[in-house]
Amino acid sequence: MPSAPPSPTQTLADWVVQSQWSNIDATARTAASRSLLNWLGCALGGASDAAVDQLLGAVQDIGSSGRCPLLGRSETTDPGTAALVHAFASNILDYDDTHWATAIHPAGTVASALVALAGHTRISGKDFLHAFLLGMEVECRIGMAVSPGHYEHGWHITATCGVFGAAVAAGKVMRLSAQQMAWALGHAATQSSGLVASLGSMAKSLNIGHAARNGLLAAQWAKHGMTANHQALETRFGFAEVMGPRSFDSALYEGLGQHWEAERNTFKPYPCGFLLHPALDACLAYSDRPRGDAESIERVVIAVHPLAQVRADRPHPGNGLESKLSLQHAVAVALLRGDAGVRAFTDAAANDPELCAFRDKIRLVSDENLTAQDAHLEVHLHGGQHMTSEVRGVPGQSPLAMSDALLERKFHDLVSYGAPHCDAPELLQALQQLPQTDNVAELFHLTLRRP
Amino acid sequence: MPSAPPSPTQTLADWVVQSQWSNIDATARTAASRSLLNWLGCALGGASDAAVDQLLGAVQDIGSSGRCPLLGRSETTDPGTAALVHAFASNILDYDDTHWATAIHPAGTVASALVALAGHTRISGKDFLHAFLLGMEVECRIGMAVSPGHYEHGWHITATCGVFGAAVAAGKVMRLSAQQMAWALGHAATQSSGLVASLGSMAKSLNIGHAARNGLLAAQWAKHGMTANHQALETRFGFAEVMGPRSFDSALYEGLGQHWEAERNTFKPYPCGFLLHPALDACLAYSDRPRGDAESIERVVIAVHPLAQVRADRPHPGNGLESKLSLQHAVAVALLRGDAGVRAFTDAAANDPELCAFRDKIRLVSDENLTAQDAHLEVHLHGGQHMTSEVRGVPGQSPLAMSDALLERKFHDLVSYGAPHCDAPELLQALQQLPQTDNVAELFHLTLRRP
Repeated sequence: MPSAPPSPTQTLADWVVQSQWSNIDATARTAASRSLLNWLGCALGGASDAAVDQLLGAVQDIGSSGRCPLLGRSETTDPGTAALVHAFASNILDYDDTHWATAIHPAGTVASALVALAGHTRISGKDFLHAFLLGMEVECRIGMAVSPGHYEHGWHITATCGVFGAAVAAGKVMRLSAQQMAWALGHAATQSSGLVASLGSMAKSLNIGHAARNGLLAAQWAKHGMTANHQALETRFGFAEVMGPRSFDSALYEGLGQHWEAERNTFKPYPCGFLLHPALDACLAYSDRPRGDAESIERVVIAVHPLAQVRADRPHPGNGLESKLSLQHAVAVALLRGDAGVRAFTDAAANDPELCAFRDKIRLVSDENLTAQDAHLEVHLHGGQHMTSEVRGVPGQSPLAMSDALLERKFHDLVSYGAPHCDAPELLQALQQLPQTDNVAELFHLTLRRP
Repeated sequence: MPSAPPSPTQTLADWVVQSQWSNIDATARTAASRSLLNWLGCALGGASDAAVDQLLGAVQDIGSSGRCPLLGRSETTDPGTAALVHAFASNILDYDDTHWATAIHPAGTVASALVALAGHTRISGKDFLHAFLLGMEVECRIGMAVSPGHYEHGWHITATCGVFGAAVAAGKVMRLSAQQMAWALGHAATQSSGLVASLGSMAKSLNIGHAARNGLLAAQWAKHGMTANHQALETRFGFAEVMGPRSFDSALYEGLGQHWEAERNTFKPYPCGFLLHPALDACLAYSDRPRGDAESIERVVIAVHPLAQVRADRPHPGNGLESKLSLQHAVAVALLRGDAGVRAFTDAAANDPELCAFRDKIRLVSDENLTAQDAHLEVHLHGGQHMTSEVRGVPGQSPLAMSDALLERKFHDLVSYGAPHCDAPELLQALQQLPQTDNVAELFHLTLRRP
């Protein structure tokens, strides 16, 4: 077993500084591109959310200004604030990525800081993807090294570890020296924040916004020679000791560059709690067939794993947020509309009279023979006819595995929802050509709205 | 004993919202003015420090801009960044205030956020001082409620609690509702950060800068209706539980408004470790008398409390920072220059040939009969004559008690050091008239340098 390096912080910093795009294999590159595609969809899907309007009102009222454009919008601001707004917007729909080993949504802080920087400095497509991949790796590594204690203790891990990813990614683009990169990690560590108590309020998405901005500035402070503790992860009164809440283990640095956490990143096919997903799959499979309308259906029986029933038996969700945890709503909207996208879980959908009435026809059954990846659907029509649809998950395979085609469908759905002025196919093409572009800002400019 | 209030967070928020300047007695008002005087001196003393130049270089390079002026400087920026720069500058000389019960430097984050806001919005002198007093009270209360465990655990308490003071003060000026004020505390709680590992690097003063900016923005988010946990101090996975690291006690809310922590705020008479202060008093008392020059002195004996010897027996300090913890340097500079101000502990002073040579004539004696507030000085001249000077602290009285006259002398010293373009008597007069002014920005404009 190899001995621990003298300084884990410096080991990470050195590795990031020395990493070369030419040494990164196609699998990792593809993983980075898929994470970026999913993130950009989420950022555009959230771009015109009322909460983003509110945030921008607050930003403009306090006099933050600059020339950095904002994805899917017409305003401009300074890069730090742009990073904040992008990360906030990309999280607001609860539709972002998940790194299961840590529960981190890894793309948000990293991509947000990079896109903001790209609004200020020319960045090539390769440099962008490279920094994005490295940032996600570092935040997930740090997250793994303090998991599961850190999140359990009450730290909002996407923010507390995301700040490191943003710092390292921005620092890579800025071409920091190894010493500066260690300082950037130190500045990130001492700004790391975010309480789990914020979940359930707008402060949750703001946590991720703050982490993106703080990470970008951490790199900027280091670039200008502002010193920080260069062993901030492991030192006395450093990140692991104070916030860990335990010492790092070798998950932090072992096998760096030999495998990539981005390859383990997953994407939600539906913008709701994952315990609802098997039922949605079963309903969508049924609704693809010729079907009757709501009135032809007498009753529906949906059987799920007992945990899904405990968590998501919510026959009368009052708003969009509650509908994301309602099996009855999920079944109703998927059966009647054939849709489980971002429009299926809005306040309007939750309160739609037809859906509300239909939810009463649904009976939820807990079945111990099913796993959390399974669902069994029975649709009984008036007159006695009935049909069934069953979904069985593949053991060991992530329930959130998404093909490229599904990812693109999700992207289209999000763009048409939150940024309908955008040409989604044009954006997809630009994303595919990203490694060949000299200036990624050209891609992001395609999303801007006319003022 | 009164029972605990249903929500400590809401109790604090309600108290701040309802507080009236007309109900605040003269002692508290004077305490606020003294803290502001000391803080403004520190901010101007640090305004032209090389580290502040570096910070502004970084800020401008990343495109932060705006019309908010910066104390003692010619640049302008956005209010959030201005709060950051002010708090950074006011801490960089290690000459700021101390609230002994918590080890917080209370004025920094609060005044910095308020001055930045005053560069953006008209604030009257009364509103400014009122908000300043309330902000310091809230941060010290929160600090007391988690002390001593919080700082001991590794949290840089001036930053982690200072963010609450800045949020509450900015929120008071913004006239937040009780609900918004509770959200502001929630936004502050979830942004609270700062590791003790940062001490010894520039990240230490940056921690305080970030807290000032984050507190200001916490209030701004709340003002615009952005929600946060409204019980963030005490709730599950909230501030006390996650960062406390223990439950709050009644120090948080008992007797609010009946006494003020600002009255317990203290100010360093000398910009160095407080264990050096009795020796400096003894030397300055001696050097006020007619004296010989360095060559007439054969040797010096300085007797101090054993702890002072253990911590500050440093005969050859290599730079300004080390000289702040060197009894030999303190004695030399005070005896030969009659000065223990901000110029006495610079790199130049630490390496001054005359002072270096003289330090070898000084013998340090540890005396168990002395307290940490005492010192006994013997100056032996060539030819056999010797003189003594003794300082005995008053038990129970803070060693840092400073008269108004000493505070003003310190202010003059700092202004002439860091902002020599300013008219210190004019500033002092404006500070005295602050409660009568309609727009505090006029005072702060007096400090600006021509571009």
